[in-house]
Amino acid sequence: MTTPDFCLTDTACRHMVRAVPTARPDTPVADVIATLRGQAFDCADTVFVTDAGGRLEGIVRINDLFARHADRIVEIMEPEHEAVTDQADQEEIAQLAISLNMIAVPVVDDVGRLIGAVPPEALFRILRAEHMEDLQRLAGIGPHAAGPEAALDAPLRDRYARRLPWLVLGLLASTLVTLVMVRFEEALQANVAVAFFVPALVYIAGAIGAQAVSVSVRGLSTQDVSIAALMRGEVVIGLGIGLTLGVLSAAGVFAMFRDGMLALAVGIAVLAGGAVSAVVGFALPWAFKRLGSDPAMGSGPVCTVIQDAASLSIYFAVVTALML
Amino acid sequence: MTTPDFCLTDTACRHMVRAVPTARPDTPVADVIATLRGQAFDCADTVFVTDAGGRLEGIVRINDLFARHADRIVEIMEPEHEAVTDQADQEEIAQLAISLNMIAVPVVDDVGRLIGAVPPEALFRILRAEHMEDLQRLAGIGPHAAGPEAALDAPLRDRYARRLPWLVLGLLASTLVTLVMVRFEEALQANVAVAFFVPALVYIAGAIGAQAVSVSVRGLSTQDVSIAALMRGEVVIGLGIGLTLGVLSAAGVFAMFRDGMLALAVGIAVLAGGAVSAVVGFALPWAFKRLGSDPAMGSGPVCTVIQDAASLSIYFAVVTALML
Repeated sequence: MTTPDFCLTDTACRHMVRAVPTARPDTPVADVIATLRGQAFDCADTVFVTDAGGRLEGIVRINDLFARHADRIVEIMEPEHEAVTDQADQEEIAQLAISLNMIAVPVVDDVGRLIGAVPPEALFRILRAEHMEDLQRLAGIGPHAAGPEAALDAPLRDRYARRLPWLVLGLLASTLVTLVMVRFEEALQANVAVAFFVPALVYIAGAIGAQAVSVSVRGLSTQDVSIAALMRGEVVIGLGIGLTLGVLSAAGVFAMFRDGMLALAVGIAVLAGGAVSAVVGFALPWAFKRLGSDPAMGSGPVCTVIQDAASLSIYFAVVTALML
Repeated sequence: MTTPDFCLTDTACRHMVRAVPTARPDTPVADVIATLRGQAFDCADTVFVTDAGGRLEGIVRINDLFARHADRIVEIMEPEHEAVTDQADQEEIAQLAISLNMIAVPVVDDVGRLIGAVPPEALFRILRAEHMEDLQRLAGIGPHAAGPEAALDAPLRDRYARRLPWLVLGLLASTLVTLVMVRFEEALQANVAVAFFVPALVYIAGAIGAQAVSVSVRGLSTQDVSIAALMRGEVVIGLGIGLTLGVLSAAGVFAMFRDGMLALAVGIAVLAGGAVSAVVGFALPWAFKRLGSDPAMGSGPVCTVIQDAASLSIYFAVVTALML
């Protein structure tokens, strides 16, 4: 497949083919079948129905072209014919194909005239590329110019360079968590056992937050789910999970250390920190999307550091209130 | 689409359709086209070529059926015709479609006789489902019986129940990190500033590890990349990233606290902990796959806790050696 030079990456323009079968609504079905023979189509799985001006009016899946006994195309065509422009983002094209059960997505110009179609092979590549990109972005790995598949066996220096930026940003952001620790030096001095639970608290907050991020990113890529409803659910689930894990960890700390106040402080920090992490993990990807940025970026260092800092601040506040 | 009751979830059996066009190698192309008319195929995008016993011999994409001027099917068929059995895992089917550029994947029985095909619509659903499942599994969310799409608006109790198990396991595993902290109580007592960098170290180890997990999971789902080569690369990249971040964090700690030994200890812990996290994050999903388990599970609590415990152990060992 050759790609025109002027296409933007990840757009319909880059994935479309131009040689597709077309017909008018009043063309006899037998004529359409007869004219298919001898033509070198790039994608013959769907016949695109246009008016005299070339504007898309409907589509006929090749299965239906053969199967249905009908005189004219208009009788068998699917008049629901959403289409994309050649500037459409590839993710939108794949969502349209899946939601409308199309195996080739028509591409039209600004006035609705058919200019080509994104064939099923390209839709496979798009779906796979979106999958690989999400895995990378959630892990904070920058995109490779030649696409996510190329990235795997790229030169080491290139792979290093695409992974470093988020980590350096994360290192800077982690100063915030260190400052939280410094601020509670007194509590740590008074009882060094308070420090024992710091990594576990950070770890649990991160794990709860990662689940919320995943639900958020999935919700954003599934257009027919209400974000508000998901958010309400996330608050309830975050509190429920926080409560369960809080009780378990308080019991565990008490069993190991026989210190009721310390156990209570850890339990409350897990409960509140878990609920905060769930809400932050859910809300940040959504906020990034609203700001026109990539929602998966909301799972990066910013999100994790906010979760960590919130959990530790809650923990130290409770420790200070209960134990000092 | 109706699904037979006896199909295993996520297998070709569940996704295949049976009414597909077939032809013999010596059938005239014109006859094949003529007989397509009037038949209600589930998937007419590809003609499957079989011998007299029904065994698959090749495939002809519908584009080629119309385009190529040939007398008989054998002249235009693609004799490279990898197929799957009806027990094949859906991920394998999608990989085959993409790697061989097939838009419908033939399904054969144990002796190679054609029994149906997985159509492009099903391949779209499979690719999307695998994407959503990876997002969930990497975040430690259990699968929903009705598939990943159904999971988003499932009842709250169900969503809670699918998220809790990994977190409880994680809470248990986090005992290991707490024990590391307890073991180094003396170092913490001697200088409480040692505790300040614990959450940042855990955070950086986790971030480096998450990138390595993502590279590993992607490598495992792309069959034509050598895992050994990726592993060698991961060691080099892990050391390179660890070195860069180690120098940066040592400089940062020195700038903030004017304590050369503490800065050195943090720097060495970031370097070594980062390298260990990269290797563990890369190797665990691969090990899970070798053990017949889901590679994405290797990113769960086990992996993170090993990374955290390793980073902190290195840190405290260096602190003990340099400062006590």
